[in-house]
Amino acid sequence: MAMPQAVKIVEVGPRDGLQNEKEFVPTNIKIELINRLSAAGFRNVEAASFVSPKWVPQMADGADVMAGIERRTGTIYSVLTPNLRGFEGAVAARADEIVIFGAASEAFSQKNINCSIAESIERFVPVAQAAKEQGIRIRGSVSCSLGCPYQGEVPVASVVDVVERFAALGCDEIDIADTIGVGTPSRTREVFAAVTQVFPRERLSGHFHDTYGQALANIYAALQEGIEIFHASIAGLGGCPYAKGATGNVATEDVLYLMNGLGIETGIDLAKVVEIGDFISTSIGKPNVSRAGKALLAKARSEKSTCV
Amino acid sequence: MAMPQAVKIVEVGPRDGLQNEKEFVPTNIKIELINRLSAAGFRNVEAASFVSPKWVPQMADGADVMAGIERRTGTIYSVLTPNLRGFEGAVAARADEIVIFGAASEAFSQKNINCSIAESIERFVPVAQAAKEQGIRIRGSVSCSLGCPYQGEVPVASVVDVVERFAALGCDEIDIADTIGVGTPSRTREVFAAVTQVFPRERLSGHFHDTYGQALANIYAALQEGIEIFHASIAGLGGCPYAKGATGNVATEDVLYLMNGLGIETGIDLAKVVEIGDFISTSIGKPNVSRAGKALLAKARSEKSTCV
Repeated sequence: MAMPQAVKIVEVGPRDGLQNEKEFVPTNIKIELINRLSAAGFRNVEAASFVSPKWVPQMADGADVMAGIERRTGTIYSVLTPNLRGFEGAVAARADEIVIFGAASEAFSQKNINCSIAESIERFVPVAQAAKEQGIRIRGSVSCSLGCPYQGEVPVASVVDVVERFAALGCDEIDIADTIGVGTPSRTREVFAAVTQVFPRERLSGHFHDTYGQALANIYAALQEGIEIFHASIAGLGGCPYAKGATGNVATEDVLYLMNGLGIETGIDLAKVVEIGDFISTSIGKPNVSRAGKALLAKARSEKSTCV
Repeated sequence: MAMPQAVKIVEVGPRDGLQNEKEFVPTNIKIELINRLSAAGFRNVEAASFVSPKWVPQMADGADVMAGIERRTGTIYSVLTPNLRGFEGAVAARADEIVIFGAASEAFSQKNINCSIAESIERFVPVAQAAKEQGIRIRGSVSCSLGCPYQGEVPVASVVDVVERFAALGCDEIDIADTIGVGTPSRTREVFAAVTQVFPRERLSGHFHDTYGQALANIYAALQEGIEIFHASIAGLGGCPYAKGATGNVATEDVLYLMNGLGIETGIDLAKVVEIGDFISTSIGKPNVSRAGKALLAKARSEKSTCV
């Protein structure tokens, strides 16, 4: 299969990346981050989460963030909604898309939310119905699609099953998430080859973590399966909660560098993104873990130095 | 083309990885590193460099390192030799393979050694002849094969030209090196597709740097071109001299994790390699930059902690 000529990059840093930060990131920083990202050309930004602030205190200011950002025409601002209450918050905040989620691993589902995969997705029925009625896009996120911290191997059939359940709920887009970054390219291709049989290829996306350094190889593998949407997190924001100190989300700068090298259109300005990566890393006092970001920043800063 | 069922991983950490360390790494540490690597199953270790200690003081103890290591049957211990004097040192040290080098970039060659590519390779004629006479293997390293810090783009034809020159010198193996890590998968495939027309595929290797995070994607691309030999550096030892603070050689642990995931045989024990990465990082006081290494170490250390 020919690789796509253009892809959509979904920037998840403001939500997935920041959500585990212990130190509260000021609302104005979150707003500036999102505004700069949309100005750099992102067509989809995961901007906030309408979950209980008891669970995720970092995301407690979701309504203020959504109220404060400048909406760029053509950019979809997504928010995570675990339940109907979260959905109501999302509607009030004028979210363009809500994100619902379920694990492909039974062990993960039981350990995390104390119910089966099937039950966990059943609970989203009212949310999905309400979203459909109000014309709000729905994205379903299939976590642990390439492996689970509890059960290890996750059968491809389990991923397909969750995708079918999300499709039945009316999801507009479904992401195959390697939540703990354990996947490798052959398995990635196998999973995408299977799920494209039950859901349209052009509405499936790849969400990869770089915990084991495999994210870009997996993205290259998914491109070869014709996948056209990828998630990434600016400066590699977001760790891996299952291995302290380990790398989390794949860095947006690295993904854009890959796409540019492959001649695949993204509509996003890499140079601007590198600056945004520097801005947010500096703002929250965390090291920038994007390799392309670090290299391009180092290059810009030492442009005058000679090196033989 | 089908991917290979088995690959050879050349561990370059003791030479390429350590050579730029400012603080001198004690000889006994270098020896322990090499011994542990060969015990973990590596069939080829780049162990030392017989260059002038004025140029590379870190490698001044090459003869002592080679004298001190335990030779594992079946493992090739390679050393870098810039000239006949270096070659004599390599012979005295009982090296199994010498490494000679040339750039695919005319600008790089001129800037670095003040002569043309053709002249630089011509200078290796007496070294290559002497190696052939003594039955010592020769590896030719083609630097800047995917890009140059001075001229930028490097024509594929230039890489092919250097490979042909090395082939004419009698090289047993030739590595295509992305010295500054700028390559991406399509270009990688294009270059390998071209060089396999002039040199046997099974004796070509890929030497990738992870400066822009692309190394594993490039390795996966090269595997799809049937390449069977890859270089890697334990714990990602070795920076990028052209961008201070940027990442250098691809980490061995990440490469092994990829190969294991793809079901490609390496004969190397990843768990042992992760421990060796921890040993050398700790010994020289540098952060371990292998993502798989860090994740597997973190996992081992937090095995008892619960995470929900």
